[in-house]
Amino acid sequence: MGVVTPRTATFPKQDRSRATRRRLLEAAVACLAERGWGGSTVAVVAERAGVSRGAAQHHFRTREDLFTAAIEHVAEEWLATLREHARTLPDSGVPRTRAVVEMLVGVYTGALFRAALHLWVAAADEVQLRPRVVALESRIGREAHRLAVEFLGADETVPGVRETVQATLDMARGLGLATLLRDDTPRRTAIVREWSRILDSALRRDG
Amino acid sequence: MGVVTPRTATFPKQDRSRATRRRLLEAAVACLAERGWGGSTVAVVAERAGVSRGAAQHHFRTREDLFTAAIEHVAEEWLATLREHARTLPDSGVPRTRAVVEMLVGVYTGALFRAALHLWVAAADEVQLRPRVVALESRIGREAHRLAVEFLGADETVPGVRETVQATLDMARGLGLATLLRDDTPRRTAIVREWSRILDSALRRDG
Repeated sequence: MGVVTPRTATFPKQDRSRATRRRLLEAAVACLAERGWGGSTVAVVAERAGVSRGAAQHHFRTREDLFTAAIEHVAEEWLATLREHARTLPDSGVPRTRAVVEMLVGVYTGALFRAALHLWVAAADEVQLRPRVVALESRIGREAHRLAVEFLGADETVPGVRETVQATLDMARGLGLATLLRDDTPRRTAIVREWSRILDSALRRDG
Repeated sequence: MGVVTPRTATFPKQDRSRATRRRLLEAAVACLAERGWGGSTVAVVAERAGVSRGAAQHHFRTREDLFTAAIEHVAEEWLATLREHARTLPDSGVPRTRAVVEMLVGVYTGALFRAALHLWVAAADEVQLRPRVVALESRIGREAHRLAVEFLGADETVPGVRETVQATLDMARGLGLATLLRDDTPRRTAIVREWSRILDSALRRDG
């Protein structure tokens, strides 16, 4: 029994540690989205997560560690949600293309993008932050591109298709930026409808 | 002569005042692009412009006044440059469409957009700043749209054309955001080429 007790005591401890880490990551993203990089420190996040500052520093040594891990964590969750959501897409044609474009635009108009945007903009001026944010952004961008290609059924061996899919992601990012300041849902809906029509015919045309 | 002297003394004084204002506005944009909203205060800008803090405050009562005026000033200059540049565009067809798209994308990858982006992102969280940045962004956005329509020779009475032009501006904005972190010129060039081809055929098609 002397052997069993430490094990049963250890497992809940690991669970608690994982739960704490998760609370910190989620609080960090919310903090970044609401207060920007300037207002986002490990101390502020720890308080928001209801975790002691010492415990927070045990998980994340620096502010940069915490916030890049936070965006990465939420991006992973978001990619998993996209994959899940993809099962409910229409089978083919313009309806499917439009549903995919709506899904991608949805990504760039949510809280994750808002938080990421603060991190991106801060990273442009902060030497400490920049290389990891560049690496993170590349990784998320590549994965978003890969999913877009898969969901759209795009054949990237056809000249121009790769660039058209990338343009779609850039357009979604631009719409997200506009949404940061005001809710322009009607404008966005009209653009998504028109873009989807054009994209669909660009993807279906013979090379 | 007693009447003439104050006049000749007054005019250079107005010129000096205008020159000071201009120096402050240009220093403000540079400061915002390099140091972000957090590092941008009236004092920092005054020092950079070589103007006393008192003189700076004579021109701009608050930090919000200074930075929105700065973006507005540079945006006006930029619009004037676009109009100038438009005279050198190819006459028609895909070459003209591509030159216009390149011009628009160029706008969103320069120092003005970088500075504006800091202001937009800060405004998302700052109650004092937000309404004026929203108003400013609308005005610049409308003017950019109007110029794009004019340069592209787009007929907005044809259904979908208005949205396609807007989507082009959003795509340019999204490309600008990606450029904030790394110079991805080859990727951008390929996207611009492909999108120009698609846009041109979308604009020329019969409604």
